[in-house]
Amino acid sequence: MTAREPHMLIKRAPLLIASRNNPKVKAIRDLRHRKERDRSGLFFVESIHMVASAIELCATIELLVVAPDLLASRFARDLLREQRQGGAACLEVTAEVFENLASKETAQGIGAVVRQRWEALERVRPGGECWVALEAIHYPGNLGTILRTSDAVGGAGAILLGPTTDPYDPAAVRASMGAIFSQRLVRAGMGEFAAWARRHGCAVIGASPEAALDYQAVAYRSPLVLLMGSEPRGLSAEGLGLCDTVVSIPMVGHNDSLNLSVAASVMLYEVFNQRRAMFGSTSG
Amino acid sequence: MTAREPHMLIKRAPLLIASRNNPKVKAIRDLRHRKERDRSGLFFVESIHMVASAIELCATIELLVVAPDLLASRFARDLLREQRQGGAACLEVTAEVFENLASKETAQGIGAVVRQRWEALERVRPGGECWVALEAIHYPGNLGTILRTSDAVGGAGAILLGPTTDPYDPAAVRASMGAIFSQRLVRAGMGEFAAWARRHGCAVIGASPEAALDYQAVAYRSPLVLLMGSEPRGLSAEGLGLCDTVVSIPMVGHNDSLNLSVAASVMLYEVFNQRRAMFGSTSG
Repeated sequence: MTAREPHMLIKRAPLLIASRNNPKVKAIRDLRHRKERDRSGLFFVESIHMVASAIELCATIELLVVAPDLLASRFARDLLREQRQGGAACLEVTAEVFENLASKETAQGIGAVVRQRWEALERVRPGGECWVALEAIHYPGNLGTILRTSDAVGGAGAILLGPTTDPYDPAAVRASMGAIFSQRLVRAGMGEFAAWARRHGCAVIGASPEAALDYQAVAYRSPLVLLMGSEPRGLSAEGLGLCDTVVSIPMVGHNDSLNLSVAASVMLYEVFNQRRAMFGSTSG
Repeated sequence: MTAREPHMLIKRAPLLIASRNNPKVKAIRDLRHRKERDRSGLFFVESIHMVASAIELCATIELLVVAPDLLASRFARDLLREQRQGGAACLEVTAEVFENLASKETAQGIGAVVRQRWEALERVRPGGECWVALEAIHYPGNLGTILRTSDAVGGAGAILLGPTTDPYDPAAVRASMGAIFSQRLVRAGMGEFAAWARRHGCAVIGASPEAALDYQAVAYRSPLVLLMGSEPRGLSAEGLGLCDTVVSIPMVGHNDSLNLSVAASVMLYEVFNQRRAMFGSTSG
């Protein structure tokens, strides 16, 4: 073994990529665009926290991207060594190339190209966990924040109805703070969703500022889907039509609506709090 | 009167500014920068909803900015006519100049330069309404969203502690959806805030993911300040030190925190819901 080590080291010494125009670097940069994410089924995450979350939650990492000069964290270096020992593919780049790939925030020198994970609605069996269905949600930051809160309350994930923003958009991924890896993601049409909810006896509770029923006046039973509308318009007539119940979150101010991720979070915590009160524990 | 009308019309016909380099246009554009907002005590809002909110909530409008070619809304045209009849100063610009002043969203052809409104903490008497104090809050979008929720629950406003983002940042103003005009705003140092809270017998309830006490286990009495920490770091030791009680919002997921505006909103709704339950009404 000892005799072979120098040779192995030479063979495995990675090439440090210094050009932004390197085809692999370019392919990673292109994952900023939805078209390219949709085509490849991949997305890029770029902080220590996100890479560690991806590993912990068993996401499929296609490629680790590392800028040795930026990698100041001992935790990150240990994590990287473990991944390499496990056979993970790794692309080493200069600090300048990494900063070009990363968003404006302080680049931490580690990122990963990760495979997207989608489930087909027909294969989803709703259980005790609450789902959030989002009709035509527009802002990726809102979507990521909703995933983050859903993770916090032990929710199942998000069912994206109709044309929505992409949960794998960098802004959604960042806002999710890792929940992109813990939460289940489903895309479906409205009709398909309605049939699925009916088939499984799912309670679909919609939220709308116009509804008369107070969101705290409802006993949220399982299986449960909270249905939220898009940011400027709320639920469509079709969306409202497939709700068993529509509730509103009371407001007494000058505005007539809440931020979508706030409204979804207030609803999710109401469901969570009811269940905590019922079961006398913090299980979601 | 009739004989004078043509002359008055000519005299009052506004000049349509077509240059981005016009000094007035440049001064408005400079309000994007905090330094310039701080220096002038002004900020710029740019949609029909925001201008209408400013008027409704009696903000001091220094200048209306209008692009006649973009002003499709009947409501906005009526509003503009009323304001002009009331003597409001108005700057007319071309669509191109307006779009240059506005953010990326669809320009609606009406905006306003508005005077900032700050209160000195020493003159604030806390009453039945809940205040939110924010220590070193970093993201303007979060601050605006918190103001929006505070408005929704009938909250008083925000006390900004230490170096924080600017509530008059365009992203904060946009996220507030008009609450920037309804909510009271105060800046203070930590020591000054502590003395003020003590003097008025204000309950200061902090939120921290590390606290053992469940946020629903507390009876929130008036006068009340909810104290929240900064996005990445939470409350400082100094911040925690001046709380009467520190609570946490339970979480059962993989993440160890909520988005700051979500956490503040969940807390604000808990206070609001307790008061609704106590008084059997929707008053905040």
